[in-house]
Amino acid sequence: MKRPALSTTTLVLAAWLTLAAQALAQTDPLPSWSEGAAKKTIIDFVQATTTQGNPKFVAPEARIAVFDQDGTTWVEQPIYTQVLYCLERVPAVVKAKPELKDVEPFKTVLSGNHEAIAKLTMPDLEKILAATLSGMTVEEFSSQVKGWLATAKHPRFKRPFTELVYQPMLEVMKLFRANGYRTYFVTGGGQDFVRMYSEEVYGIPPEQVVGSAGATKFGYDKAGRPMLTKEPKLLLMDDKAGKPEGIHLVIGRRPVAAFGNSIGDKQMLEYTQAGDGARLMMLVHHDDGTREYAYGPKSKIGTFPDALMAQAKKQAWTVISMKNDWKRIFAFE
Amino acid sequence: MKRPALSTTTLVLAAWLTLAAQALAQTDPLPSWSEGAAKKTIIDFVQATTTQGNPKFVAPEARIAVFDQDGTTWVEQPIYTQVLYCLERVPAVVKAKPELKDVEPFKTVLSGNHEAIAKLTMPDLEKILAATLSGMTVEEFSSQVKGWLATAKHPRFKRPFTELVYQPMLEVMKLFRANGYRTYFVTGGGQDFVRMYSEEVYGIPPEQVVGSAGATKFGYDKAGRPMLTKEPKLLLMDDKAGKPEGIHLVIGRRPVAAFGNSIGDKQMLEYTQAGDGARLMMLVHHDDGTREYAYGPKSKIGTFPDALMAQAKKQAWTVISMKNDWKRIFAFE
Repeated sequence: MKRPALSTTTLVLAAWLTLAAQALAQTDPLPSWSEGAAKKTIIDFVQATTTQGNPKFVAPEARIAVFDQDGTTWVEQPIYTQVLYCLERVPAVVKAKPELKDVEPFKTVLSGNHEAIAKLTMPDLEKILAATLSGMTVEEFSSQVKGWLATAKHPRFKRPFTELVYQPMLEVMKLFRANGYRTYFVTGGGQDFVRMYSEEVYGIPPEQVVGSAGATKFGYDKAGRPMLTKEPKLLLMDDKAGKPEGIHLVIGRRPVAAFGNSIGDKQMLEYTQAGDGARLMMLVHHDDGTREYAYGPKSKIGTFPDALMAQAKKQAWTVISMKNDWKRIFAFE
Repeated sequence: MKRPALSTTTLVLAAWLTLAAQALAQTDPLPSWSEGAAKKTIIDFVQATTTQGNPKFVAPEARIAVFDQDGTTWVEQPIYTQVLYCLERVPAVVKAKPELKDVEPFKTVLSGNHEAIAKLTMPDLEKILAATLSGMTVEEFSSQVKGWLATAKHPRFKRPFTELVYQPMLEVMKLFRANGYRTYFVTGGGQDFVRMYSEEVYGIPPEQVVGSAGATKFGYDKAGRPMLTKEPKLLLMDDKAGKPEGIHLVIGRRPVAAFGNSIGDKQMLEYTQAGDGARLMMLVHHDDGTREYAYGPKSKIGTFPDALMAQAKKQAWTVISMKNDWKRIFAFE
């Protein structure tokens, strides 16, 4: 059977539609976002705050956008990446200090007994953090973390943790930066840990990472060379009230935009909102158990309690539904 | 008597010389510096580290230059500006808390007896710093400092402190920034204090001020608005060993250039020098009692002891003579 010939008009129209669709895709700064209120809120905010003469205009020097990390820009389930790092670092620590082999909590971690490890108490965990995050120079720590990141894999996704980054949030960060905003991490995670990959993975340089920070101690090695050693002393716990406190310590300016995903980000969003002029507060809601994890207010983990959802509604914070607002979650999808 | 007529050649030559001198002046990035080793060292360093293909080339993201403040970029005699601020703030503190009127060291400060004030001990001074630098919100502190800076005058120069800035150092900062460097203060002074004028006076934004830092506490005012209150708890003493520690905390990168003027900057210069590749370490030497103050190794103040001068020579740090290397010290000269 002979197919009917396509008219010239039809061909021209088809070509035009293809070109138009490509042009639209090229100019959409958030291609991984579904059309909807969340996407529109972000694009409108960036446009309004960077347009001269707009009442919401924000001076270039004040354009600071802050992002929580775990659960806001990458996967935080089933365990914080840094906590996994610390647990997996224990064998190397015990190798260097064999006397720890039979001492708790190191003994339990070495046993590999997942049930027992899951039951470790907060003080146990603190001992593990202290042993794996301090006692070395900052350069030694850097090479330890980089070595681990190069080989460690996520238990469910079987990929490096640095690939488990939310593509829609990378697009938001790029959009802000393209419009003169400086993007900062404000994370409960360790400042030195996050600095090891923030520039390569997120385009956020080390000096724009605010995180939980331990003290360092300046001294000299045996050859008389200056060195900084990581100390088991916490200077800043960058979570909850610690987030605005950390922002003041490191940045010294109130952000105009803040992105979080949990009760630990509440104070950061409140502090951001309390400034004058245009403000943007957003919360990523984990409601996609198929593509990622579902642990929003309906789940039992409790990082996004009903009270936070109610506050978001009351204070006009935008809640991002991972299920509905994100066309894709990861770059590798 | 008739003056001899100038030949056309002479006129052309004179015009050419004038133009050439102007062109030279326009392209000299450090016009307040006398020609000499210090000036040449700075210009050569910036040129080498920003020229692609030069073995000393420094990648743009690593271009960090750090500057001490008191004594390096502005006058620190006869008293640190911030200490004077704290002393002059005492009457307002006592007005708000009249019970302090008869309590030492506030009583002595209120007496105006200069001799007695000069004899206050370190613990006395700490009480004054705590009372004048904490207890208020960060916004209240900001307006208190700005109000003081607008009216306070230096006892000898009879000018606002923000004019007692070393013009040659402003030129150095601008030269570095024009070549892709980020300039940071790393000061023993209070981080929040220096942030009040650093952007306007030096072009250094608040997020690039590393200083001695007190904790803040997040909370809510009576109307339920979020606020940060300055606490009398020191998080970072940004002097001596605290300088590299503060650099790591806030910047997270080793600087490639460091400028100081005293024994308190020694560790910062050592830490800067210990990195790979091109490095620049410089010390401002106060040897001009006529135009400013002379308190270098030959004087008794002891902030620049002979040992520091010997170390500078041994480690090839460049010492800047205010007397010989600076054509002018202040913009108002």
